[in-house]
Amino acid sequence: MFWRHILMRKGACCPMQIEVAVNKTSKYAVGESGDSAEVVERPKGGVTALMVDGQGSGRSAKIISNLVVSKAMSLVADGTRDGAVARATHDYLFALRDGKVSATLTMLSADLNSRTIVISRNSHCPVLVKQGDRVHVLADKVNPIGFHQFVKPVIHEISMEEETILLTFTDGILHAGRKYGRQLEMETLTKMLLEATAADVRQLAGQVFSLAVEREENRPGDDMTLLALGVNGNNNERTGRLHLTYPV
Amino acid sequence: MFWRHILMRKGACCPMQIEVAVNKTSKYAVGESGDSAEVVERPKGGVTALMVDGQGSGRSAKIISNLVVSKAMSLVADGTRDGAVARATHDYLFALRDGKVSATLTMLSADLNSRTIVISRNSHCPVLVKQGDRVHVLADKVNPIGFHQFVKPVIHEISMEEETILLTFTDGILHAGRKYGRQLEMETLTKMLLEATAADVRQLAGQVFSLAVEREENRPGDDMTLLALGVNGNNNERTGRLHLTYPV
Repeated sequence: MFWRHILMRKGACCPMQIEVAVNKTSKYAVGESGDSAEVVERPKGGVTALMVDGQGSGRSAKIISNLVVSKAMSLVADGTRDGAVARATHDYLFALRDGKVSATLTMLSADLNSRTIVISRNSHCPVLVKQGDRVHVLADKVNPIGFHQFVKPVIHEISMEEETILLTFTDGILHAGRKYGRQLEMETLTKMLLEATAADVRQLAGQVFSLAVEREENRPGDDMTLLALGVNGNNNERTGRLHLTYPV
Repeated sequence: MFWRHILMRKGACCPMQIEVAVNKTSKYAVGESGDSAEVVERPKGGVTALMVDGQGSGRSAKIISNLVVSKAMSLVADGTRDGAVARATHDYLFALRDGKVSATLTMLSADLNSRTIVISRNSHCPVLVKQGDRVHVLADKVNPIGFHQFVKPVIHEISMEEETILLTFTDGILHAGRKYGRQLEMETLTKMLLEATAADVRQLAGQVFSLAVEREENRPGDDMTLLALGVNGNNNERTGRLHLTYPV
């Protein structure tokens, strides 16, 4: 109670829970996905979820996305601010591959130090943000990392409040169904987001992912990765949990 | 030797699924856990789960465990072999803190390149391994990292085969119930492991964790982290999933 009181005075309000869900599959008949996704704890508290789509597909794309995600993850774990992580990761890839290879990098951070959610995009794929009963689609034009001399991310910072949901994905999902003339529409995703609650982030991720796979007639034409992050009231739950399923 | 023999006969065969479950809470009335746990994808395929218990509790322990886990995680993501990861991480902590601070480091790797599971221990806490209908308790004496000049891990390598389950934890769980005269016994854990199947790794982790918390009368006297890894037949599921819950 005493703790609670202090927390409330500090502006940290009531106990919350951050949930992250990732669903991921590779291009049909290609064993290895060229996307990488990781979730890492921030040294001052909170988590950062990172999603990278390496140029191309298969093994060569995986090598790129692994390089990028491991560099970025390591910087986040060192306490580097997200804007600097994206810049440094770009510079690293640009120097290492001489501007010949690109990758998208999206980071969603729930930062307990600033009590904000920081969204960092170097991708043509949007990030959908639900707060209250509105969905914002963050889709400003921005370069991927690796190709150009000076690249910086588009960054949005929003308050960390209950019932916030963020949803993003790689272009395998953005373009799902396109070749069959029934591309997944932003309105469909917005509607699904409006109907979801932050406690259902895992279900939401599963539903959107299944829909995208269906639109590709269960044979994805590209690697697909979907990332969702939600903030909800946590009923004083004090246990953190992680569950990972990795098909071999 | 016996394990190595099985490994040679089997090689890579049918589709499998790796599952990792982590449950984690902090010492009662201490906001921040001094343990850290992360799961990272290996660049040649597979995953490594890392668990670190920093000396002490609260913020100072968290700073140590974060240093250690982020260094180790970054090395794993670079493709460093597990034995070298543990040695390098020790050397780093030893140099940085002048041998004055220690941490335990346990790594469980499901390595698709070697088709083996590699268990690396720098901890007094055991790793329980179920294969077939037997449970092996890996508990060779080994130093934690950070204190002594030259420290190396105890490493076991076993074949990656269906129905393998690994279970390990930090000393908050090892010593759970000790002060109430009803310490969690290795026989109890072995029995729970024997009754579990690899598809139930998440449930197993939840059960063992709840039991440990109960033994501490729901007020853990130390940070508690539990890590379980299972390999099961996957029915051709091609979607990887991650779900994280992080209390604030």
